[in-house]
Amino acid sequence: MIGPRFPDLISRLPATVPFVGPEEHERAAGIRFRARLGANENVFGPSPRALEALHSADAEIWKYADPSHFDLKAELSARLGCTPGNIVFGEGIDGCLGYLVRLLVEPGDAVVTSDGAYPTFSYHVNAYGGALHKVPYRDDAEDIAALFAKAAEVDAKIVYLANPDNPMGSWYASADIEAALDTLPDGTVLALDEAYIEFAPEGTAPNIDPEDPRVIRFRTFSKAYGMAGARVGYAVGAQPLIGAFDKVRNHFAMNRAAQAGVLAALRDDAWLAEIRDRVGAARSRIVEIAAENGLSCLPSATNFVAVDCGHDGDFARAVLKALVARGVFVRMPFVAPQDRCLRISAGTGAELDILAEELPKALAEASEPAT
Amino acid sequence: MIGPRFPDLISRLPATVPFVGPEEHERAAGIRFRARLGANENVFGPSPRALEALHSADAEIWKYADPSHFDLKAELSARLGCTPGNIVFGEGIDGCLGYLVRLLVEPGDAVVTSDGAYPTFSYHVNAYGGALHKVPYRDDAEDIAALFAKAAEVDAKIVYLANPDNPMGSWYASADIEAALDTLPDGTVLALDEAYIEFAPEGTAPNIDPEDPRVIRFRTFSKAYGMAGARVGYAVGAQPLIGAFDKVRNHFAMNRAAQAGVLAALRDDAWLAEIRDRVGAARSRIVEIAAENGLSCLPSATNFVAVDCGHDGDFARAVLKALVARGVFVRMPFVAPQDRCLRISAGTGAELDILAEELPKALAEASEPAT
Repeated sequence: MIGPRFPDLISRLPATVPFVGPEEHERAAGIRFRARLGANENVFGPSPRALEALHSADAEIWKYADPSHFDLKAELSARLGCTPGNIVFGEGIDGCLGYLVRLLVEPGDAVVTSDGAYPTFSYHVNAYGGALHKVPYRDDAEDIAALFAKAAEVDAKIVYLANPDNPMGSWYASADIEAALDTLPDGTVLALDEAYIEFAPEGTAPNIDPEDPRVIRFRTFSKAYGMAGARVGYAVGAQPLIGAFDKVRNHFAMNRAAQAGVLAALRDDAWLAEIRDRVGAARSRIVEIAAENGLSCLPSATNFVAVDCGHDGDFARAVLKALVARGVFVRMPFVAPQDRCLRISAGTGAELDILAEELPKALAEASEPAT
Repeated sequence: MIGPRFPDLISRLPATVPFVGPEEHERAAGIRFRARLGANENVFGPSPRALEALHSADAEIWKYADPSHFDLKAELSARLGCTPGNIVFGEGIDGCLGYLVRLLVEPGDAVVTSDGAYPTFSYHVNAYGGALHKVPYRDDAEDIAALFAKAAEVDAKIVYLANPDNPMGSWYASADIEAALDTLPDGTVLALDEAYIEFAPEGTAPNIDPEDPRVIRFRTFSKAYGMAGARVGYAVGAQPLIGAFDKVRNHFAMNRAAQAGVLAALRDDAWLAEIRDRVGAARSRIVEIAAENGLSCLPSATNFVAVDCGHDGDFARAVLKALVARGVFVRMPFVAPQDRCLRISAGTGAELDILAEELPKALAEASEPAT
């Protein structure tokens, strides 16, 4: 019996996955995390109105959701000052990024990102056979000039930029991105990942005409809106590109209760302001805890802080390992020299108390000579 | 400014979508459906335990779900008598079918289905550039012998078969499918869509070794489990094929509450039995209503009934149009001669009362000479 006949592209793909979930770590280590500070989730949760909407919608979970996302697009387009045709919803930003790559990248087509930037974007590019070109970070930030220059050099279909950046928390002012657009090569689409934009200072989101054909922006309800488990992200861009998503996307992929929940979340501006305050306070606390341990932190426009462990990647990995073993789930950048840092998400007071208790021990363990 | 550069495959794809949702019909017609009998949803809803699980999980919607679906796979594999590695979860059967096509079909690769079978499968094949070959129904059932013969003729990567069938409700006994497997061409994978299998008589699901490399089966929580809005489907097959999904799928696509809800649903066998009874009663009622109007029905192993309107497709379309205008949402087969039928989902008693009231009027309207 001959089984499935995979194309070469598929046969050659690695079996690795972009992220191992905290539950997998827990099962592997036989522990239960006491502080869940590794996935940049928003522990303060969604608007109470969103929770109410979820609860009400649960009773109608037997119905498919509206595949055109009409109500959501109406609300969001009014808020963004665009038309519903400028918006497409997907299964998180991950889903939207996958569709974008599928729409533009044929095997061998060039795509540019930063070395150490969001791995799920790179995962999609590799899985569609794109030729991925990576540019180093510069001063712990994605290097816009180098990214766009590389895009010109390789004739890239897409260049990826996160603002603010994950995993470093760095960001550009809107004017910097607006000015850089003049240097974006013809025929390269800027995929601007704004997953953390609601945490950033005013003046971070660039002012870009939704009909500008050069840019597509990605946002999510997973971070500031506190609904990572809902799996709702969206992209905003010019209608010819946004409309093309309808040619390939899974039209019935969105959970019905999630659709109701994020609509309510979107309408609760007061809660969003409250979240910004709480996250800001948690970030300050992480900086204090780091300082108590003689460590410095990078400035952050997100709901996490990159804590500089002061040595190389091996040291930071040892600290991370010790923290995880002590029930503190954190992650870290993949690439040197950014991998000298730990990436610690804004947690509750109780979780950060645990961090404060365990970090000195983890640092001490990591500093012991290997036996 | 040059915008995105689409590959030819994408540029040529139509903007049409597989299904227009009932909400879209409602907005277009400015009405609200009084009976929602068109999407084969399960109006009797999920297990009360599943609803409880959804409610409990809502509070943790700020967390991503476990991307490896560990608990779900453990429960399901024990029930199916396979290993967790034989199962992959996706965003409904729609999502799973899309991933299967992506894994196997390169532009130009042959795929076989029935003319009039599930359009979302065909949508995925077209969108990945596959060469779709369609075989006619035979006696209102998918024609296994003709499908497999066509697969041999065109050297198909995949042949699609739904058992029970949608939109006709017809089905094959397990032994028929088991016997037919001997004639499946080498290198063709049988995509066996069992979305409705829980409604079918005992002895409908074929006995196939999960490690048989020739077959991949698809099931869902959208139908008998009453959770269409949750978007949880799964595929069962040999580990080399199932494992390949992890190379390309959106690992974080599943809603967290949905994951908890379907796990509870899976464990409530008593509710599933209750649903079978209620759906059976509703099917009988649809047959009675049809008979009162002089119409016959096809036998059904699903939660819908194909009602033969007794004339051609134009007549059935006129009946459908009249029903929709009267607030009764139904759908119908796309292809002759199956399009002589309406496809009516098992509804509540109240909804079927509305059907009983409106069907004679719709038939009368459709019978009037056009003016």
